[in-house]
Amino acid sequence: MTDTIVCRPVGTIRSEHRIPEETPVQPEFAKGCAGRAEVFPEYEEGLRDIETFSHLILLYSFHKAGDPELIIKPFLDDVPRGIFATRHPSRPNRIGLSVVRLIRREGPVLILEDVDVLDGTPIIDIKPYVPRFDAPGNATGGWTDTIDPRKARQRGRRMYGSREILQKKK
Amino acid sequence: MTDTIVCRPVGTIRSEHRIPEETPVQPEFAKGCAGRAEVFPEYEEGLRDIETFSHLILLYSFHKAGDPELIIKPFLDDVPRGIFATRHPSRPNRIGLSVVRLIRREGPVLILEDVDVLDGTPIIDIKPYVPRFDAPGNATGGWTDTIDPRKARQRGRRMYGSREILQKKK
Repeated sequence: MTDTIVCRPVGTIRSEHRIPEETPVQPEFAKGCAGRAEVFPEYEEGLRDIETFSHLILLYSFHKAGDPELIIKPFLDDVPRGIFATRHPSRPNRIGLSVVRLIRREGPVLILEDVDVLDGTPIIDIKPYVPRFDAPGNATGGWTDTIDPRKARQRGRRMYGSREILQKKK
Repeated sequence: MTDTIVCRPVGTIRSEHRIPEETPVQPEFAKGCAGRAEVFPEYEEGLRDIETFSHLILLYSFHKAGDPELIIKPFLDDVPRGIFATRHPSRPNRIGLSVVRLIRREGPVLILEDVDVLDGTPIIDIKPYVPRFDAPGNATGGWTDTIDPRKARQRGRRMYGSREILQKKK
């Protein structure tokens, strides 16, 4: 049961985000941020028909994340939460998930929008986003629903005073 | 870039699905199927506040999947597709993703519904499902939208003639 699971990157994410502390924390806060998923040539065949989808689920390695922590202050708030109740990178297995918009495919390269992922991030998997499977109609946002939308936006985009916020979090 | 990423399971999924060929292929086709995520005691603290969410994203190991294939016939159809355009288990990195309903938490155990995951599956990560982050309003289902809903339901549930379907797929 506790056997390790070994993953090998299938490509690399390219984006305009080069500084972890200034990278938006979710596609919601990265509207219009262009990016690419560059799939390694040996996996290109596996992309067939992916261009029929409007959105993709990217699984990737939080390769710049710190050591795992079980209790953490999430980016959007100052209340410490369990790591599994947040999307924070410092997770036991540092895998990130983003639902991004697929603009088009150019061979092994997927042209994306709403990319909240750091440039150079190793891609672990690409899955089609299927609303019927992935969007339960009656879902709520748990504790995130209690965050003031303006505060969430400011912190999520990390564009204004992000350094101060980080400072305060320490 | 091609460094391997090593994951260690944080728990185990318990479900009523014990035979891979008879396991529903998505939560959509596993309505009412009860299940549990049993998190290992050393990670229990990381679950704090998870009970505020209505749905969770499970990332898990497709531990019974066959060798990776780049072109595959998906469960819902007979047309071969690129593996990254499907949710089929035989992926380069065999990680599965399901959005499931959280009923309640009992210490390190999450009581779930709509579970389409095989009993005994190792859990890699648990993330809160946040509609604002995970459900783009304008998403379409790509090639899956072309599948007749009755056929999708029958194949997705794998309850009637699943063995015949599998036979035919070979």
